[in-house]
Amino acid sequence: MRGDGRAAGELRPMSIARDFTEMADGSVLVSFGRTRVLCTASVDANVPRWMRGRGKGWVTAEYSMLPGSSPERVKREAAQGRPSGRTQEIQRLIGRSLRAVTDAALLGERQVICDCDVLQADGGTRTAAITGAYVALHDALSRRLAAGDLAEHPVLEACAAVSVGIVDGVPCLDLPYEEDASAEVDMNVVMTESGRFVEVQGTAEGHPFARDKLNELLDLAGAGIAQIIRRQNEILAEPPRLR
Amino acid sequence: MRGDGRAAGELRPMSIARDFTEMADGSVLVSFGRTRVLCTASVDANVPRWMRGRGKGWVTAEYSMLPGSSPERVKREAAQGRPSGRTQEIQRLIGRSLRAVTDAALLGERQVICDCDVLQADGGTRTAAITGAYVALHDALSRRLAAGDLAEHPVLEACAAVSVGIVDGVPCLDLPYEEDASAEVDMNVVMTESGRFVEVQGTAEGHPFARDKLNELLDLAGAGIAQIIRRQNEILAEPPRLR
Amino acid sequence: MRGDGRAAGELRPMSIARDFTEMADGSVLVSFGRTRVLCTASVDANVPRWMRGRGKGWVTAEYSMLPGSSPERVKREAAQGRPSGRTQEIQRLIGRSLRAVTDAALLGERQVICDCDVLQADGGTRTAAITGAYVALHDALSRRLAAGDLAEHPVLEACAAVSVGIVDGVPCLDLPYEEDASAEVDMNVVMTESGRFVEVQGTAEGHPFARDKLNELLDLAGAGIAQIIRRQNEILAEPPRLR
Amino acid sequence: MRGDGRAAGELRPMSIARDFTEMADGSVLVSFGRTRVLCTASVDANVPRWMRGRGKGWVTAEYSMLPGSSPERVKREAAQGRPSGRTQEIQRLIGRSLRAVTDAALLGERQVICDCDVLQADGGTRTAAITGAYVALHDALSRRLAAGDLAEHPVLEACAAVSVGIVDGVPCLDLPYEEDASAEVDMNVVMTESGRFVEVQGTAEGHPFARDKLNELLDLAGAGIAQIIRRQNEILAEPPRLR
Amino acid sequence: MRGDGRAAGELRPMSIARDFTEMADGSVLVSFGRTRVLCTASVDANVPRWMRGRGKGWVTAEYSMLPGSSPERVKREAAQGRPSGRTQEIQRLIGRSLRAVTDAALLGERQVICDCDVLQADGGTRTAAITGAYVALHDALSRRLAAGDLAEHPVLEACAAVSVGIVDGVPCLDLPYEEDASAEVDMNVVMTESGRFVEVQGTAEGHPFARDKLNELLDLAGAGIAQIIRRQNEILAEPPRLR
Amino acid sequence: MRGDGRAAGELRPMSIARDFTEMADGSVLVSFGRTRVLCTASVDANVPRWMRGRGKGWVTAEYSMLPGSSPERVKREAAQGRPSGRTQEIQRLIGRSLRAVTDAALLGERQVICDCDVLQADGGTRTAAITGAYVALHDALSRRLAAGDLAEHPVLEACAAVSVGIVDGVPCLDLPYEEDASAEVDMNVVMTESGRFVEVQGTAEGHPFARDKLNELLDLAGAGIAQIIRRQNEILAEPPRLR
Repeated sequence: MRGDGRAAGELRPMSIARDFTEMADGSVLVSFGRTRVLCTASVDANVPRWMRGRGKGWVTAEYSMLPGSSPERVKREAAQGRPSGRTQEIQRLIGRSLRAVTDAALLGERQVICDCDVLQADGGTRTAAITGAYVALHDALSRRLAAGDLAEHPVLEACAAVSVGIVDGVPCLDLPYEEDASAEVDMNVVMTESGRFVEVQGTAEGHPFARDKLNELLDLAGAGIAQIIRRQNEILAEPPRLR
Repeated sequence: MRGDGRAAGELRPMSIARDFTEMADGSVLVSFGRTRVLCTASVDANVPRWMRGRGKGWVTAEYSMLPGSSPERVKREAAQGRPSGRTQEIQRLIGRSLRAVTDAALLGERQVICDCDVLQADGGTRTAAITGAYVALHDALSRRLAAGDLAEHPVLEACAAVSVGIVDGVPCLDLPYEEDASAEVDMNVVMTESGRFVEVQGTAEGHPFARDKLNELLDLAGAGIAQIIRRQNEILAEPPRLR
Repeated sequence: MRGDGRAAGELRPMSIARDFTEMADGSVLVSFGRTRVLCTASVDANVPRWMRGRGKGWVTAEYSMLPGSSPERVKREAAQGRPSGRTQEIQRLIGRSLRAVTDAALLGERQVICDCDVLQADGGTRTAAITGAYVALHDALSRRLAAGDLAEHPVLEACAAVSVGIVDGVPCLDLPYEEDASAEVDMNVVMTESGRFVEVQGTAEGHPFARDKLNELLDLAGAGIAQIIRRQNEILAEPPRLR
Repeated sequence: MRGDGRAAGELRPMSIARDFTEMADGSVLVSFGRTRVLCTASVDANVPRWMRGRGKGWVTAEYSMLPGSSPERVKREAAQGRPSGRTQEIQRLIGRSLRAVTDAALLGERQVICDCDVLQADGGTRTAAITGAYVALHDALSRRLAAGDLAEHPVLEACAAVSVGIVDGVPCLDLPYEEDASAEVDMNVVMTESGRFVEVQGTAEGHPFARDKLNELLDLAGAGIAQIIRRQNEILAEPPRLR
Repeated sequence: MRGDGRAAGELRPMSIARDFTEMADGSVLVSFGRTRVLCTASVDANVPRWMRGRGKGWVTAEYSMLPGSSPERVKREAAQGRPSGRTQEIQRLIGRSLRAVTDAALLGERQVICDCDVLQADGGTRTAAITGAYVALHDALSRRLAAGDLAEHPVLEACAAVSVGIVDGVPCLDLPYEEDASAEVDMNVVMTESGRFVEVQGTAEGHPFARDKLNELLDLAGAGIAQIIRRQNEILAEPPRLR
Repeated sequence: MRGDGRAAGELRPMSIARDFTEMADGSVLVSFGRTRVLCTASVDANVPRWMRGRGKGWVTAEYSMLPGSSPERVKREAAQGRPSGRTQEIQRLIGRSLRAVTDAALLGERQVICDCDVLQADGGTRTAAITGAYVALHDALSRRLAAGDLAEHPVLEACAAVSVGIVDGVPCLDLPYEEDASAEVDMNVVMTESGRFVEVQGTAEGHPFARDKLNELLDLAGAGIAQIIRRQNEILAEPPRLR
């Protein structure tokens, strides 16, 4: 049994609160245990310059931790003058994940920017961000579809993510900060409803890991993500309130 | 009667939710109408370099709008490379306001950083930020007092802020975005429980304004702030939950 | 009596030297006591991108302190990589003040940039800058009017500024650095020839201030500004030398 | 058969030229096909500030593409003002990989900086960089061991990397740019001599991929890396020339 | 005869106004024709970090053009985020020139920063800056000598600079902007009272130049600089007013 | 005799390796002793914005030292956020030198960017860069001529550079780092095949220098450059391999 009483393959209590704010096209407050991320999706009429004229859309993401999200205050990146390497890596991961389940041609020459702002951080913020941003993106596009801006919904299938890792030799699902800090292996997995991979990022912290451990971690992640996607689908079964 | 049905001297519905997050020493989600600001207060053992060795503390503030806080997405300042002039002006205003009601000697060589992140913006974000940050600061210091880090509570008296302005020739209290955008005069007032001024910042948008209008605006602001401070005091009457 | 022998309501010796340099459209060296600011106004054929096509003009300002302007050398902001928060706040104040007395439609799609560079700093640099920039702006537009570029002079009425503050409990006019550093309240007031306010910015340094003190300070400022505007008008009564 | 005549599981012609330059402690020019990366390792007497006093060392990496390395000139990042997100991601990957095979305690309070500069880019630059930097790091530490600065060689086992991907439905090893640009799945794998993983980073480009494809890719990578490590070991069997 | 009526070997009307401002240790407003540069010298008790503990001092310079110094407004470098390449080149030139005539050991562990701000630009601003900064530096050190901070005056001999160039095939002295813009060769020469060179920087604009032309330009520069140094010495013959 | 056995007027062993890489239009690895610089020339279809529509081309250069190029590691400028003053000065020098021997009208509205990356630094990197970049530029344009993009070769005559200096009182040619660091005078000279000057930059390090020393240095430089240009011409006599 783990520090917080969970079994190795058990997710933390999860919630996905829709329309937490009302200004952006989609807005979701997602929680995994004490980790809380506000994900908004804003649809912009213009694609980036390098994509113009191709008749295709673009989905991108930005990520940030609020300074008060952590027991030790996180320095604000605007004051530092630039997003850190870690932030940029996470932003790119979220963006790629969402693009993998979006039909760029159905989206048309539009850009959706998914902003993932961590209100409270207790491990797994990037995977929570992907999970929440998927719902915010879906809602934003549902509203555009209802408004007649789109002919068909561009989302192809559901997408969610979870972290797994080896803690004291045991493969575990959905690591809080305390476990994450001491894990020997840390892996983030992004998968779709059809059980396929979008991203697999495994990193040895300290000691390299063998192929069989990799397999065990992928099994755990697959089961966890299937459970998360069921929750996403329950929520999305009801269309978002139009504004 | 105004666009949202209020009288000229009426505040928007206001709420101050304590401990919205649990990592920072103090955390408050403050709302004025649709404007919502998350204010956290983090106590740091070190004062800025230029203050060291004086036996006094420092209170400072940072402010940011989340990109999805507005119908038109706000560009992230970390991506721009620097806080804008407007952001810095607001940060300095919040910091000065809080310092005016804090006894720096009682605080000792500690720094409190108050982070004000706008989750949703509908006018009056800087005055909401001051109002919420005051409560977060008070809670953070109450916890340090309870923990024995402080001998006496360094907050001297309550402090709150509100915007006033002249809309279609009529002095009005607590302007939402729509009124703010068309106001002829825009004024932010910060006052204390004892009815004195900490900051008065009045700006003519378009046409200069006469002394009697200034007086009417200050009357409105004084009444509104008194009402806000009563609410702050009600909340602070109960000590914060210790962690 | 004050440190420099003045009465509480007395201005420092003031001078406004026209055409101190000859390259910019308007150029004024303004002095209040030892404070000296070089203000130039450059007319640019293009408005900022976001204003194009509206048939209106824009007046903006930039402010800087030369490194040698102060007994303790001021670090050059180009070397720091960005204008400080204080600099940006002052730039925005000067720009708003000048726009309040300029008819944007008469100006047409032109931008006037007023550069205020402090050659020597002894308190009140931002108010001296507004006072001098007004004259430089007026001269620049007079020359354009004479050249046939404008149909009518876009300046609506005179505009000047002064600092007031409470020093050792006494409301005083036009504070030099020494008084400013010890003032309990510091206020900058920008007014027009018609006696109306463009900006009122009062800040408690240390202790909040009561309404009656605010009124006394506004009285002092009003009298001082009236005197400054008389001087501006004397100078502008004679048209600038054409080039 | 592939565009360049190779079988799916075949590496490109590989070379590892030792001491290509003579100033840094270790210097290797590594080539995979037309991809050429100059890797130097510089030993610095100081660890980063946050590691001081722990009696342990640190290995880090920096990566850059020379502007002329590509048919379309690559903009210089110094001129852009910051390393791109992609560059930072690669730098972090190289650093983590090298640290995984270095005993930080044996290294002592020293930092090794491995600079990987791409002279010519034709796909697989980050994996070539890891492969070359490992040899440069090993040589740099061998020289320090010979000089008596170290008691024991801190490298634990060999480490190399390779890219794999799915091209036209076929899992392939060591992708040149042309294949990389059209691959459906792109994966970078870092492994050690003992056959364990340091990093696995797989990304779906366009379409998510199934578990069996992941397994095929890992098999290909494992075989390729084993071959690369044999070459590294042949070279390192002879000690570097002392200087 | 030239555009402004001068002979080829004639300087523009020159003036060196001492103590134009009174805050910095030395302050000089230097003019060559319409070119006017304010040079201040500030003595700092600390040398740069890399020079500490050597018992020697350092002289450095910063240069800037005020935005209104030119008929076409010059963009402020603080707004651009960094000094331009041209600015840095000029700053380095001024600093090297002043160091060449200063005894670093007599200066002791002190830094003198010479700020050269161009109030009006009409060609030759960098040579005017060197000429004026020399006088400001000398005055600053004379004041320190009088105050007993120095045992001996660290300036070794006078130093001045001038521009020369080939205009319409004719070697000319002290080029105003108009000549400079069309010159085939542009050369800046810095010399000392003893007739030796500190810097020679000749650049072909368009067409390379032959050795005999180089010699003619050096002759012109030598004569001009001798004349400028006589003026500097006349001024410095009288000690600066103590403050 | 000098430290490395050369006579005062002797060049270090020099080599110019053509097509060291194959992606850029021209690519040369130039060595002077242990100094090695990789010079590539990339032809871009667009001139900078300010040159558009004039029917003329532009040649520019960028310069960088690889971090491992020096015994003491050189900090990467992308990590510093900007090219240093020294880097910008060198880039401007290389660009001006190449433009002096290129007919901008024959080049047409094209830009050639010459990247000079120092793989190993032992003095004279900027002059080696000019020497190598000239050959890379010539090759790049020869390829464009062969491809029919140009009507005539835009290079007017050969151009090369060398450093000279006074070491222990003796004028010497082509200084390695050790001599450069102790030289009393340091001069970089850029000349053309016709024996004319493009740039002369002489700097006194420590002590000013007399006119006769300047003449001796120019004599040495002239002889050295003539020898280098003979080598460049030998190589360019054979046209570059077409790709």
